[in-house]
Amino acid sequence: MLTSLQNSLVKQIRKLHSAKERHREKLFLVEGTHLLEEACAVNYPLVTVCCTPEWQTDHPELWQEAVVRCERAQIVSEDVLKAIATTVQPDGVLATAKRDDVSTDVPFTGLVLALETVQDPGNLGTIIRTAAAAGASGLWVSADSVDLDNPKVLRASAGQWFRLAMAVSPDLKITVQQARLAGMQVVATSPSATLTYWQGDWSKSSLILLGNEGAGLSPELTRMADLHLKIPTNPAVESLNVAIAAALMLYEAQRQRIMNYEL
Amino acid sequence: MLTSLQNSLVKQIRKLHSAKERHREKLFLVEGTHLLEEACAVNYPLVTVCCTPEWQTDHPELWQEAVVRCERAQIVSEDVLKAIATTVQPDGVLATAKRDDVSTDVPFTGLVLALETVQDPGNLGTIIRTAAAAGASGLWVSADSVDLDNPKVLRASAGQWFRLAMAVSPDLKITVQQARLAGMQVVATSPSATLTYWQGDWSKSSLILLGNEGAGLSPELTRMADLHLKIPTNPAVESLNVAIAAALMLYEAQRQRIMNYEL
Repeated sequence: MLTSLQNSLVKQIRKLHSAKERHREKLFLVEGTHLLEEACAVNYPLVTVCCTPEWQTDHPELWQEAVVRCERAQIVSEDVLKAIATTVQPDGVLATAKRDDVSTDVPFTGLVLALETVQDPGNLGTIIRTAAAAGASGLWVSADSVDLDNPKVLRASAGQWFRLAMAVSPDLKITVQQARLAGMQVVATSPSATLTYWQGDWSKSSLILLGNEGAGLSPELTRMADLHLKIPTNPAVESLNVAIAAALMLYEAQRQRIMNYEL
Repeated sequence: MLTSLQNSLVKQIRKLHSAKERHREKLFLVEGTHLLEEACAVNYPLVTVCCTPEWQTDHPELWQEAVVRCERAQIVSEDVLKAIATTVQPDGVLATAKRDDVSTDVPFTGLVLALETVQDPGNLGTIIRTAAAAGASGLWVSADSVDLDNPKVLRASAGQWFRLAMAVSPDLKITVQQARLAGMQVVATSPSATLTYWQGDWSKSSLILLGNEGAGLSPELTRMADLHLKIPTNPAVESLNVAIAAALMLYEAQRQRIMNYEL
């Protein structure tokens, strides 16, 4: 059992708390039982798996599944686990995994999200979870958004992180042009739009643009949209949370598709 | 200018970081410019307002609005502000306000939410913000939910906290019975429901039941509902975030009402 906080493995994993180091090492953290289950369920390659003796005893099957997928399996003391985890109360297990180079994997068909400068990891994770639930085909984030591999993003995605095609767009304007060339309509929300989001026609493949939590979508990207839709709100309320706006549009598209299918 | 961290005002305000003390003192914190603006906009009574000299210079009008509404206005040093704030980077102002006794103020009409054991303050704040945007008439939380006055709840509500009728229900089963006696239908989501949430009839006044982030709604409350609706998800996805589920139902009710009004 690894007990020393001075061990090189502890130092290597602690480095991955920083986005810069995660990108440099092309590794990220999979913290906790639920995320490890989801990673194993989609056969995601693991590098190191660390767990406490108690966790190993309590999760013999998941431990076996993780061991066969990783390069190094390591039993660690509770103190070591606390030192390598980003959460205050880790639940007994933590793995590192290879960051796929997924930048070309988001298909330009179906429902795709493009997020501009989204800052809050909880919002990004919730958007990923909702997009997977609504059957979206993928998600782009601008390079100045919160890191896709941020541990809080994985946590808020409730494991759906492993099931959605995601990539960083070096320039969302180019992504919008690519989507249009592929025959997608480009949708933006705007409080001054005439149509509500349920009046929009969601039968086409759609790229949905969503903006920063404070500033909203930039005027430049808003102008590039083919379809401007508003989410009606009580006049005293300025705006909705970005994950809520994403969910309303994704599920309206779902509703229209299922209704049309049933007709 | 107040500069000593040993001052009794500092100690009194720091106490309010704890839910127990907030309830005992019947006070809560209004942190930051935006929340203070919203409190003033609805004429919410303030007790103490503390700001740095820089903030006062930059916000002369809001400062005047706050001063006339509070019992004590106090210029404080940046160090004092940091000591009394719950955020790491306070934006220069913090107030305390009286906790209204609102337990009888939620009307049993229109759209009302009832949250069972919701734990995450970000979720509760987002639900409050969305409910206000969708024109809901109020919100109940079970007594074992996160504290309504938690500073993170106010922050995530983006100021809508001051605009929505909210109360703690000592027993949600009694709240459900009261809603039914008042002629409301009681709605619960359930993955095994036959109807999707857009197939439900939202023309009636509705009490929407929502459950805990991990465990969902208790079987006892689920059984009490008149209308069970499912939110369709990709089979690999277990569930949605509770704030997303709330938004989808609130906005489906809005959509149906506006569509019926337009017919």
